[in-house]
Amino acid sequence: MKKGFDELIAKVNECGMKKVAVSVAQDEAVLEAVQEAKKRGIADAILVGDEAKIREIAASIGMDLAGYEIIDEPDMIQASLKAVKLAHEGKADMYMKGLIDTKNFLKSVLDKEVGLRTGGVLSHVCVFDVPGIDQLLFLTDVAFMTYPTLEDKVNIIKNTLPVANACGLACPKIAPLAAVEVVNPKMPETVEAAELARMNEAGEITGCIIDGPLSLDLAIDPEAAKHKGATDRKIQGDADILLFPDIHAGNLVYKAIVHMVKDVKNGCILTGTKVPVILTSRSDTFETKVNSLALAAVVAEEMKKNA
Amino acid sequence: MKKGFDELIAKVNECGMKKVAVSVAQDEAVLEAVQEAKKRGIADAILVGDEAKIREIAASIGMDLAGYEIIDEPDMIQASLKAVKLAHEGKADMYMKGLIDTKNFLKSVLDKEVGLRTGGVLSHVCVFDVPGIDQLLFLTDVAFMTYPTLEDKVNIIKNTLPVANACGLACPKIAPLAAVEVVNPKMPETVEAAELARMNEAGEITGCIIDGPLSLDLAIDPEAAKHKGATDRKIQGDADILLFPDIHAGNLVYKAIVHMVKDVKNGCILTGTKVPVILTSRSDTFETKVNSLALAAVVAEEMKKNA
Repeated sequence: MKKGFDELIAKVNECGMKKVAVSVAQDEAVLEAVQEAKKRGIADAILVGDEAKIREIAASIGMDLAGYEIIDEPDMIQASLKAVKLAHEGKADMYMKGLIDTKNFLKSVLDKEVGLRTGGVLSHVCVFDVPGIDQLLFLTDVAFMTYPTLEDKVNIIKNTLPVANACGLACPKIAPLAAVEVVNPKMPETVEAAELARMNEAGEITGCIIDGPLSLDLAIDPEAAKHKGATDRKIQGDADILLFPDIHAGNLVYKAIVHMVKDVKNGCILTGTKVPVILTSRSDTFETKVNSLALAAVVAEEMKKNA
Repeated sequence: MKKGFDELIAKVNECGMKKVAVSVAQDEAVLEAVQEAKKRGIADAILVGDEAKIREIAASIGMDLAGYEIIDEPDMIQASLKAVKLAHEGKADMYMKGLIDTKNFLKSVLDKEVGLRTGGVLSHVCVFDVPGIDQLLFLTDVAFMTYPTLEDKVNIIKNTLPVANACGLACPKIAPLAAVEVVNPKMPETVEAAELARMNEAGEITGCIIDGPLSLDLAIDPEAAKHKGATDRKIQGDADILLFPDIHAGNLVYKAIVHMVKDVKNGCILTGTKVPVILTSRSDTFETKVNSLALAAVVAEEMKKNA
């Protein structure tokens, strides 16, 4: 049975609400999502930014700020550093982007003193609940790492595994994707996919099952896998994690799903950081922002448990 | 108003049925599609292959072979050469793959004496009717050309334009896709996309409007384009032709649409050849095979008109 976002939220409700530090919080869409996340028992928030503007927006959207901690800091860069420091010091369980450009937001994430570096690489994961597909799909990397090397791909997997674990998957199935499901020496993506599978087989990457290269039909459609006679593969339409060869393939598929599939749900976070980072974009829907907060909350709980 | 596959079929009905040469025709799924194409007034067929087996399959699926020309040639390679020759000589308007592996089928297409070479490169185009999207989408290249250079991309565009024209688009909008909609010198795909737009602006590529690089949301979702304030772009969610940076991006998006979007319709052909080539795969549905025949038929009619 697929655990959708409702189940993730139920899980957070069980463990207790998390706390999110919002960087430059004077953003209407972000405050709306933060308000909803509190209402649904996902997360409380510390709002860092221009307090006057925060109060103005809150009034305009009927958001009651009583009970929210507000840290007044009109300067954008200073606000981001103060907000990220809360997460750095453990006063917040997750860190969220507000009205600040991605570049400066990431600078705060990577700040050597108060940021969220762990020594590893950062990567992005987007979790999809697609109608008609039995499992949640974890797409990576569709937004952050551009042209991952084999080593990067190993690190992306290591960043993504705890996210899948937090969503209830003890040993997720990982499909390094390509246009084809067989190794073609003229396609380096297929060679690297096979190498990831070998590393998994050899015990060099653990806690998951890797089968690649895989075409998308074999990865997500059991009927297609059956039809193509892929009975000897470890993955037969039941992949959990879809590992993309590069950001173009990942981002184009991500947007095809968002803009073409009806009733799809998704939430995304940045991983490889000390706490989960929520980096939603202007074009994300309200529901996606709330789902991202829920995803970050279950991951934060998992990280706390394993700390 | 979007012209879907029903409109394409209506167009063929108007111009009159085309004729398809089937290479190694003893294939149940292919014969079923060929039978349906005749029933719908899309195409008559010349069946080249093992006559005994063709008759056996036809009997098993209740297909009346009266009125079909059958050329008995049990040898697979010989059958493919005899079939392609029919198209080469103008006795057939299109050429279709039957029970023969893709490699040998393509060998017949590329045969110097009886094949379908025109001197240009070959490329693949897949036409999609996606519910909720106002225009037909022409995806290229998702199956044939692996890592197109800038020159290849120009040729892919030149191969795809007549297909769009045949489907009623006099001056299609072309989106060279990438993960982002701005040029990033670290992403060669975006640089080449901008160069294609410049070549179009300078009159070096005509008969179309090219705007790139484009992310998929700006290419196909007018709401997203509006939301992102892309009011100065030539394409604002109304792209017709989606040009992919490589086969991985193209194929993964293609399969995401086929395996995730409900009620989607599609048909694909190989272009850059003397006549349209139908190269469906085992995993294509019956409807996709019939739609591919319809697409090939309107393209064949357009080529005849322009010859």
